[in-house]
Amino acid sequence: MAKNIKTRADDYAQWYLDVIKAAQLADHSPVRGCMVIRPDGFAVWEAIQRDLDHRFKETGHVNAYFPLLIPQSFLTREAQHVEGFAMECAVVTHSKLEKKEDGSLGPAGELEEPLIIRPTSETMIGSMYSDWIQSYRDLPVLINQWANVMRWEMRTRMFLRTAEFLWQEGHTAHETFDEAEEETRRMLDVYASFAEESLAVPVLQGRKTEREKFPGADVTYTIEGLMQDGKALQCGTSHNLGQNFAKAFNIEYLGRDQKKHHCWTTSWGVSTRLIGALIMAHSDDDGLVLPPRVAPTVAVIVPICRKDEEKAKVRDFIERALTAILGPEEVAAARHRVVAHGLESYFFDHVTHQKILVDWRDTRPGDKHFHWEQRGVPFRLEVGPRDVDAESLVVKRRLDREKETVALDDLSRDWLQGRLDDFQSRLLERARRFRDENTRTATSYDEMKKILANEGGFVRAYFEPGEAAEERIQAETKASVRCIPFDQPAASGKCILSGNDTPTQVLFAQAY
Amino acid sequence: MAKNIKTRADDYAQWYLDVIKAAQLADHSPVRGCMVIRPDGFAVWEAIQRDLDHRFKETGHVNAYFPLLIPQSFLTREAQHVEGFAMECAVVTHSKLEKKEDGSLGPAGELEEPLIIRPTSETMIGSMYSDWIQSYRDLPVLINQWANVMRWEMRTRMFLRTAEFLWQEGHTAHETFDEAEEETRRMLDVYASFAEESLAVPVLQGRKTEREKFPGADVTYTIEGLMQDGKALQCGTSHNLGQNFAKAFNIEYLGRDQKKHHCWTTSWGVSTRLIGALIMAHSDDDGLVLPPRVAPTVAVIVPICRKDEEKAKVRDFIERALTAILGPEEVAAARHRVVAHGLESYFFDHVTHQKILVDWRDTRPGDKHFHWEQRGVPFRLEVGPRDVDAESLVVKRRLDREKETVALDDLSRDWLQGRLDDFQSRLLERARRFRDENTRTATSYDEMKKILANEGGFVRAYFEPGEAAEERIQAETKASVRCIPFDQPAASGKCILSGNDTPTQVLFAQAY
Repeated sequence: MAKNIKTRADDYAQWYLDVIKAAQLADHSPVRGCMVIRPDGFAVWEAIQRDLDHRFKETGHVNAYFPLLIPQSFLTREAQHVEGFAMECAVVTHSKLEKKEDGSLGPAGELEEPLIIRPTSETMIGSMYSDWIQSYRDLPVLINQWANVMRWEMRTRMFLRTAEFLWQEGHTAHETFDEAEEETRRMLDVYASFAEESLAVPVLQGRKTEREKFPGADVTYTIEGLMQDGKALQCGTSHNLGQNFAKAFNIEYLGRDQKKHHCWTTSWGVSTRLIGALIMAHSDDDGLVLPPRVAPTVAVIVPICRKDEEKAKVRDFIERALTAILGPEEVAAARHRVVAHGLESYFFDHVTHQKILVDWRDTRPGDKHFHWEQRGVPFRLEVGPRDVDAESLVVKRRLDREKETVALDDLSRDWLQGRLDDFQSRLLERARRFRDENTRTATSYDEMKKILANEGGFVRAYFEPGEAAEERIQAETKASVRCIPFDQPAASGKCILSGNDTPTQVLFAQAY
Repeated sequence: MAKNIKTRADDYAQWYLDVIKAAQLADHSPVRGCMVIRPDGFAVWEAIQRDLDHRFKETGHVNAYFPLLIPQSFLTREAQHVEGFAMECAVVTHSKLEKKEDGSLGPAGELEEPLIIRPTSETMIGSMYSDWIQSYRDLPVLINQWANVMRWEMRTRMFLRTAEFLWQEGHTAHETFDEAEEETRRMLDVYASFAEESLAVPVLQGRKTEREKFPGADVTYTIEGLMQDGKALQCGTSHNLGQNFAKAFNIEYLGRDQKKHHCWTTSWGVSTRLIGALIMAHSDDDGLVLPPRVAPTVAVIVPICRKDEEKAKVRDFIERALTAILGPEEVAAARHRVVAHGLESYFFDHVTHQKILVDWRDTRPGDKHFHWEQRGVPFRLEVGPRDVDAESLVVKRRLDREKETVALDDLSRDWLQGRLDDFQSRLLERARRFRDENTRTATSYDEMKKILANEGGFVRAYFEPGEAAEERIQAETKASVRCIPFDQPAASGKCILSGNDTPTQVLFAQAY
C-alpha cells in the first residue's frame, strides 16, 4: 500500500483524488472548477473517443461542429430547458480588453446580447436544423459533435463533475416518433455495449423518472454503473425530445402527405465522467487499475540489474523480447524517437498508439514497482540476469498481482494481445460480480433504508415514481431513483412508500 | 459551369463562398463571425486531425487538455502577448443568468476576475508547466492539444478567419535552446510534409520577419501556400519562444549542474484554415475538388436507367461491382445501416470511414452529375443497361473529367486505391506547377509592383526586413513579406527598397 494514496476504507473520496494524482491523470487548474487533463488521462479519453466514434459511424452517424457560444435568447425558447441551465452558465458580455483610466486592463466592447458558453447544444443545433431540413427527403439527420461544454456547478470533483468538461452530443431528427424512439434506444444500447466491452463497467439500463429526466426531454434513458463505495454513477443518457425542440426552433418538414410537420428529435451524450467511472469501478488501494483496451501503456519492461556488465546482457535480452512482440522494424524505429529521461517507448499499436515502455531510470526496483502499479499499467515484465540465463522473464499482472514465468520463445504479439484480452474479461467479470452482489431487493421502505445505511449498492423495489415521494426518500436516505429498469416483473407489488399496488419496480441508490 | 457558383474569374471571393455552400462544407451561424462546420466539411477536418495526430505521436508527442477559460491576469504577464490578443477576445464576466425586475433574463453572479476564452494557450499551459517541471529529468515535455479557440476579428471569412476556430496547439519545453530550435523546425517539417502529402498543397518554408512573428516568440517559422487567385495563405506556424514564457510563468528546472534554469519552450499550430487552403488551391468553377486522402466520399456510383426492368439489372450489376471492390461482408453489412433518402452508403475504409455512395435518388442523371461535381467526390462510376451488357462501367475523374471504361473484372480494392493515389499525385503536381509558374523574381521595387499588379503570386527579392520598410510596401502594394525562405542565395544583392547590399532574399505576396 503506497503512502501517497489513502485506502478506500479510510477515505473513499480522498482515495479517488489520490489515485488520479499518483497516476497523473489530471490536475487542478488556476480556474475554479476547471481541471487539466494530463497526457495519461487524456490518452484514456482518446481511446474512449476512438471506440465510441467508430460505433457511431458504423450506425450511420456523422460528426459536425457547432459554435461554442449561444445567444442568451436561444436558451429561453424551451421552458424546461432554461430552468435547467440558466443558473450555472458562463456568460460572455464583452468582446475585448482595454486599458482603463488607472492603467489596468478591463472588459470593453460590450455585446448587444450576452452569449453563453454552451452547456449543451440542443438550441443552437435546433436553430440550424430548422434551416437545413425542408422535406422528409432530408431526414433522418444523424449528427454527433465532440465538444467542450460548461456548467458552473458549485461542488466539483475531478472527471465526475467539473465546470468545463469534454463530451459528445448526438443530435438527430426524424420523420416519426417511432424512428426517434428507436434511435434513442439504439444509442443507449451503443453506450451499454461500449461501457461493458471497453471500460469493463457493467451497467444497468432503464428510463429516468420525470424528476430525473433531461430538461426539455419527453423521455430520458440512462445507463448506471456501480462504484466500489456502493454509490451509483450515471454513465450516459439518451433523450427522446419528442417535438419539444422542433416546436421551439421551428424544425419542420414537408411530409409525404404534402403537409408541414414538426420533426421528432433526440439527443444523447457521454462525457469525460466515464474516466471517473472506470477509476472508481476498478482501481484499488495501490492506485489505478485500467482496462487494457483504454490503457495508454499496455506493458512496462523493468530491467533488474546492479552491475554495468549485467546491464548489457539484460538490455540485449529485452531487445530480443521486444523484437519477438513487436517485430524488428518497430524496435529499430523507436530508436529515433524523442523520449523522456530514462524511458524507452515502443508502440504496440500504431493506430491506437498504445505503448510498451522500458524503464531504465536510475531508481530502485521497489520504486519502479510502486510507480507502475499506481499508473495502472496492465502488465509488468521483469528481467534480471538470472532470467536472461533461463531465457525467460517474469510477468506480473496489475489486476491481481498474479505472477508467471514466460519463456522468451513464447513471446509474440498474439501472446501479449491474448494476455490483455484475458485481463479485460477478468476485470469485467470482477466488476459484474461486485455489481450483482450489491444489487438487492427491498420489499419495504425500512428494509431499503437498512440496506442503504449498511451495504449501499442498488436497491430494487416496487415504487410509484412521483416528485414528492422521490424528494422525501432522497431527503431521508440520500438515495434517488437511478432508473426504471427495462426488465420489469410480470406481477405487480406494493409501492414501498405508499403501499399502493404498482406494476413498476425501480432501482434506488445513492449516487454521484 | 453550375449556376449557383460564380466563376473564379468573375468574383473569386464569392466563388469561394459558393463552393463551400454548394458542397455543404459549412454554414453561417446565428453568432457573428462563428461558423457551423457541416458533416462533409467536418469529415475533412477529421481526416486532417487523424493524419496530423499520427505524425505528432510518431515523433514522440502526447495529447492533453487545458481549460478553455484563462484568467485575465495571465494574458498580461508576457508584454508582447497581451498586445497581440487583448483587442479581440471574448470576455466571460458572469456565472449565471437570472430574472431581472422586468422579468427578462440577464447576466448575474459577477466574477471577481474576468476570464477570457483562450485565443491560444501559452499562458495557461505555461502556468501548468511551472508546476510539472522540476528537474531536467522531467524534460522534454512534448504536449499537443486539439481545441477550439476564439479571436474576435472584425472581418471574417469561412474557414480562413472566423471568431471561433478549431486547431491544434503543440507546446513543448526543453533543457537547451538547441533542442527547442530543433523541435520548432521538426514540427514545421511535419506540417510541410503533411500539407504536400495529404492536402496536395505545396508550401514554401521560411522564417517570419520581426513584424510578422507571433506575439511573444523569438522566432516564428511558417509554411505558405499559394491560392489560385495569386494570393498567399499562411498554412501553419511553429514558434521558438525562447525563454520568454518560461520567464513570465516561472518554468524552471534544476539542471545537471544543480542550478536552476529557465526552460526553452516552443509552440506550433495549424487550424481549420487548412480546409480553406485546400478549397482555394484545388477547386474549380464547377465546385469543390478534394484530395482523395481527405475526401469523405471517395467514389459515387450513379445508376443510369429509365425503366423499372432496367433498374433490377443495373442494381444487380452495381452489387457485383461493390462486392469486387469492398468484399461481400461490407456489402451485406451496409444493408443494415440507417441511410439518407435514396442514397446507399458503404465504407471503403472502416478506420477513416471514407465512403462509397450509390445514388438511387429520383432525379435526372444531369442533376446528379452537377451534385457530385460540386461536392468534389473524386470518382463517379456510371452504370447503364448497356454497360451491364458489356460487363463494364464508365469511370469519370473529378480532377480533369477524364473518362475511362473499366471492365467489371478489373475492379478491386487495389484498383480503386490505385486510382485514388494517382488522383492525389496529379493534384499535387498541378498545384506545384501553378505555384512554380507563379513564383517570380524581382530585381527592383518597380518590377515587383508590376508583377503584383498584373500576375500576383510570390515575388522573390533581395530585401532588408524592417518595420517601416515592410509597412510602406504593404501600404503601396498590399503585399507583405510571407517569409525569409530557408534556401538563401550564395551571393548578396541589392535590397529592392533601400538599394543597400544584403545577403537576404524574402518572398513577398498579397495574402489572406
